[in-house]
Amino acid sequence: MRAAYYAGKGDVRVGECVPLAPGPGQVQLRVANCGICGTDLHIYHGNMDHRVKMPQVIGHETSAVVEALGDGVTGFAKGDRVTVMPLDACNNCPACRAGHSHICQNLNFIGIDVPGGFQARWTVPAHTLLAVPAGVSLEHGALIEPIAVACHDVRMGEVKPGEFAMVLGGGPIGALVALVAREAGAQVVVSEINPFRLRLLESLGFEAVNPLETDLVKFVNARTGDAGADVVFEVSGAAPAALQMTDLLRTRGRVVMVAVFAKPVPVNLHRFFWRELRLIGARVYEREDFARAIALLESGTVPFEKLITGVYPLDGLQQGLQEMEQGGAVMKILIDCAS
Amino acid sequence: MRAAYYAGKGDVRVGECVPLAPGPGQVQLRVANCGICGTDLHIYHGNMDHRVKMPQVIGHETSAVVEALGDGVTGFAKGDRVTVMPLDACNNCPACRAGHSHICQNLNFIGIDVPGGFQARWTVPAHTLLAVPAGVSLEHGALIEPIAVACHDVRMGEVKPGEFAMVLGGGPIGALVALVAREAGAQVVVSEINPFRLRLLESLGFEAVNPLETDLVKFVNARTGDAGADVVFEVSGAAPAALQMTDLLRTRGRVVMVAVFAKPVPVNLHRFFWRELRLIGARVYEREDFARAIALLESGTVPFEKLITGVYPLDGLQQGLQEMEQGGAVMKILIDCAS
Repeated sequence: MRAAYYAGKGDVRVGECVPLAPGPGQVQLRVANCGICGTDLHIYHGNMDHRVKMPQVIGHETSAVVEALGDGVTGFAKGDRVTVMPLDACNNCPACRAGHSHICQNLNFIGIDVPGGFQARWTVPAHTLLAVPAGVSLEHGALIEPIAVACHDVRMGEVKPGEFAMVLGGGPIGALVALVAREAGAQVVVSEINPFRLRLLESLGFEAVNPLETDLVKFVNARTGDAGADVVFEVSGAAPAALQMTDLLRTRGRVVMVAVFAKPVPVNLHRFFWRELRLIGARVYEREDFARAIALLESGTVPFEKLITGVYPLDGLQQGLQEMEQGGAVMKILIDCAS
Repeated sequence: MRAAYYAGKGDVRVGECVPLAPGPGQVQLRVANCGICGTDLHIYHGNMDHRVKMPQVIGHETSAVVEALGDGVTGFAKGDRVTVMPLDACNNCPACRAGHSHICQNLNFIGIDVPGGFQARWTVPAHTLLAVPAGVSLEHGALIEPIAVACHDVRMGEVKPGEFAMVLGGGPIGALVALVAREAGAQVVVSEINPFRLRLLESLGFEAVNPLETDLVKFVNARTGDAGADVVFEVSGAAPAALQMTDLLRTRGRVVMVAVFAKPVPVNLHRFFWRELRLIGARVYEREDFARAIALLESGTVPFEKLITGVYPLDGLQQGLQEMEQGGAVMKILIDCAS
């Protein structure tokens, strides 16, 4: 079978590979689709070489069909359509013992720390599987993992109906956060600088503003009677956004920190004090966020599929990464791992 | 009567002044004691000249006796012993309408924006008064306002019994936060660099560490089985503490931002994401915090009075400010406004 693997900075290759038979408690999958995540791009840029053992099959936004069961696996059968929650916790560290196993201090993130989904056959722990409902295509099923991220972010941000939410950064995760927050009843405005993404967000019914052209503070104050936004999702990872986020919020407003900042950046701590703001870190998801993502996708009420801007064969992974890198007319790219 | 007033950077004077008769809804007080707050020191340094109209009587940590009532004032009588919650909100801005009048967007802070307590007679709105219980001396009553700050901080931090709390900065507010957090059932360690304050904190039964001598991250990890602290109170206002605070916390741990940072400082936002930390801004207090502070002081179970390191006459205000500035053997200084 074929697998795409990261072989070093800027180097993704496709080669032949022997499928791994499922051990006890494991399941072998035929991967259908696997989306390219911003994390895959970080890996491709060499920024995670301290963590990724080369050569490594990456990818973790998957849909698949069960191919074979290891000993002791129940609840799934060959042919079942599934997605993978790619977290394998130690269940023994302080975080796990406190009930936060999704951010286990020794977490194996499947697709980063151990082999991922950009391959035709993939063997994973059975506990990571969730069923893809009959009404959801496998192509759309590959969106479940990033939708679960957005569900987690919106849940951690405690978004309530009628609230005014600003999403800073309208890439794939920002767009999903906007969709899920709107579904939760919020009025959502997205800030983004990429013209293609601005138009795509508008086509989804969002007000989308370019912070290089619009003064966000004036904009938010004008729209909220000088109160400020109830909640801001910082998804851009841009230092200017981190500095400005505090000026966009009402008293006791919340910032949900979704983005990955590679290094410390200046933050207006005085504004946290002055308006009694809250900053809420949000990372990956818990089982209930996956369940919520699957239910939302099955409901058909949210046009998640409009974020898919390309579906490439396994050989197209490097091209997909390069398109994401260039940041042009691209949102979510899926890889068809059977092709 | 005499009043001490701020006349410009580094310039505090005492002079004769005509008492202000209480208007409708106002009360005239005979001030007993007024503590010197870090905010008074900021004013003395000229850092708040954009806000303080000169000459201005400052001071807001007061105990007093009711001298005269304006029209329409009920619930108080001449001779009542009181303290003042020095917040006068507009009751009309978005913050007030959202129920956050203590951080009103147009707040008159009495003692900063309008005349304060460093004077023999003081006229304030009747709604700012709370009774000082019979068992509490007027000298100790001047501690109610800063204790209320600590009660607010601990309440906002949702401190629970058995939690491990780190207080960064063991000045008057840090020490009060430590005392109130311990009373709430937390195990409290204070980080402070002033040797006098370290010894005073130890005499109060706290473990007190000097971050210039002790690696706080190693210390906290060793004390918590590599979990990290449940809650950190950042009271120091020091940039190194702001950078380090995130490394001291367990997954989903909380930082309560008590300190006033004059400008943005680098913060490790990645750690907020990685451990799903929370930052909680906390400013002044609400009525319930004052009530809690009075009840704690009346109970006699917390040795708040040990923080008082000096009681000076009105003429000693400048000396008190200078001693605080020098940061030596000083914690809380009270001014006897009747002397």
